Amino acid sequence: MSDQNRNGNYYADRRVLITGGLGFIGSNLAHALVDAGSTVTLVDSMIPRYGASLKNIDGLKDRVSINYSDIRDQYSLSHLVREQDVIFSLAGQVSHLESMSDPMTDLDINCRSQLSLLECCRSVNPSARIVFASTRQIYGRPQFLPVTEEHPLDPADVNGINKLAAEMYYTLYSKVYGMHTVSLRLTNTYGPRMDINSQHKGFVGVFLRQALRGEPIELFGTGEQRRDFNHVADVVTALLLAGQHDELRGSSFNLGHDEHYSLIQFVEILRQLLPFEFQTVPFPDERQAIDIGHYYGDSSRFREMTGWAPAYDLPRGLSDTVQFFQQRPHTYSESLV
Amino acid sequence: MSDQNRNGNYYADRRVLITGGLGFIGSNLAHALVDAGSTVTLVDSMIPRYGASLKNIDGLKDRVSINYSDIRDQYSLSHLVREQDVIFSLAGQVSHLESMSDPMTDLDINCRSQLSLLECCRSVNPSARIVFASTRQIYGRPQFLPVTEEHPLDPADVNGINKLAAEMYYTLYSKVYGMHTVSLRLTNTYGPRMDINSQHKGFVGVFLRQALRGEPIELFGTGEQRRDFNHVADVVTALLLAGQHDELRGSSFNLGHDEHYSLIQFVEILRQLLPFEFQTVPFPDERQAIDIGHYYGDSSRFREMTGWAPAYDLPRGLSDTVQFFQQRPHTYSESLV
Repeated sequence: MSDQNRNGNYYADRRVLITGGLGFIGSNLAHALVDAGSTVTLVDSMIPRYGASLKNIDGLKDRVSINYSDIRDQYSLSHLVREQDVIFSLAGQVSHLESMSDPMTDLDINCRSQLSLLECCRSVNPSARIVFASTRQIYGRPQFLPVTEEHPLDPADVNGINKLAAEMYYTLYSKVYGMHTVSLRLTNTYGPRMDINSQHKGFVGVFLRQALRGEPIELFGTGEQRRDFNHVADVVTALLLAGQHDELRGSSFNLGHDEHYSLIQFVEILRQLLPFEFQTVPFPDERQAIDIGHYYGDSSRFREMTGWAPAYDLPRGLSDTVQFFQQRPHTYSESLV
Repeated sequence: MSDQNRNGNYYADRRVLITGGLGFIGSNLAHALVDAGSTVTLVDSMIPRYGASLKNIDGLKDRVSINYSDIRDQYSLSHLVREQDVIFSLAGQVSHLESMSDPMTDLDINCRSQLSLLECCRSVNPSARIVFASTRQIYGRPQFLPVTEEHPLDPADVNGINKLAAEMYYTLYSKVYGMHTVSLRLTNTYGPRMDINSQHKGFVGVFLRQALRGEPIELFGTGEQRRDFNHVADVVTALLLAGQHDELRGSSFNLGHDEHYSLIQFVEILRQLLPFEFQTVPFPDERQAIDIGHYYGDSSRFREMTGWAPAYDLPRGLSDTVQFFQQRPHTYSESLV
């Protein structure tokens, strides 16, 4: 750890910027950073359907600065990154399907804006630590399991390609300019404040909403596809560690979970918490075309270098998540977007 | 071969579009296609320093259509790709150094515009065959030699990252939409019509200009770095094959040369053609930061699938190139850009 002068709390009194700060992971991170005593600025574009909501920072509104702007806007971004100690680059277009139907927007947000952020930092704040939320999607359909960081990079959709290019910029800027950048390749993340009202952001949110509403769940394919899952609290812990460890500089790490489940097992765990029916149905064509089959990752490298270990297994994590939403029934009474 | 109805000449009467058509490789390709009886449209933005010149199509001007436009302009591009049988996507920003000093422009041209071209084709001409000029640069510093297509992809500069993303879009659009795309990963290409008046496009052009002017050549580093080289005539043959072979669809191939030379050997071959002095000097920092060391590629996969083999070795190719420029002394009397 690079700095132990803050009673073991690296983030106390640090200035921290979170892009995508009103989104799912960003807002959970904001809660943790405010608790740690950071001075937090949230940047969010509030693009409909991307998952940002002021409800995500209930209780925090007076303790963070909110800046509404789009990371595609290079000038405001350049102003915002000044004097920040740590920047969490979480803003993104996360729907794989939308990356296929509107690839140019995905490119502008997930690829071009990331290079732009790096250029801004190189120009006005080269010593900022930057943590980038990358994705398992850059591997594409796994050639072996669990997937390690050495697995070939062969993304199965436009989103994966753009995220890969972005991650490579982060690595390159560390190598060439000595900047402190770290990328975490996230797998399925779930938990409080996730967007469960979108049909285009993966099955976890879709299933959670349906289960909470007692609606039948349709599983695409055989339901045998295996996945690993992280509770957002564990992802937040990992992001915080990524920002504070000097020796991670310029590297990329898988962030997965040692336990993996088939989609049917996932549904069965959910059925122990909520009553609903489910059945398997054939894969829709546009999803089949970019499906990656089984995926679970090996995150031992990140564990060894930081001591990180997930606190939540899937049953406990889903239980926590269901509880969060049951206390906020308005959340899933909204119509689908 | 998909079509033998044209007396063995696949390109006779085909409608062919070449982006970057007034540049080095594009113009050599244009000469070959006009000879083959194609209806050729050249698109070029004429961005200063990118290498385009009307001199490159001396003798062709009345036999091709020239469209001055920038591939970043999605609307004109969308119009231009209509009704083309084959599209050679050669337009690009090729300087590695400029990709570091102006990375956003490199991204817009080498990455964003390629996705845009694919989207245009998907929308108005999905059956067009598209051949993309990729680059060895996507491998970065080689981990083994010769570099095969299975070598890890770890680009050493922004240019390499953007070209890699572009190549991945081409592969993806083939896989998901069934479009006919092929990528050739080019190594050092030299020959008639190359831009020898830029200091930022690799050592071959720089050395050729200096040798032609009888000026001393400075070799960065020890001069022991090995490279492979292709004469542009061999690259043109390969591009033509890539556009006509059905079974290459969706794939990427190295295009290298079995013979490789150290930079000192390259200079010695040039000294058998022209008188000049040379010495080794330390690497400038900004070049050292993105230097890839030794590189030579294994192109046996492309050879086996198409029968391609380079007709030129380096001594014969350089002799041909020197002769071309000596017949056009005005070319290298121009000032450096």
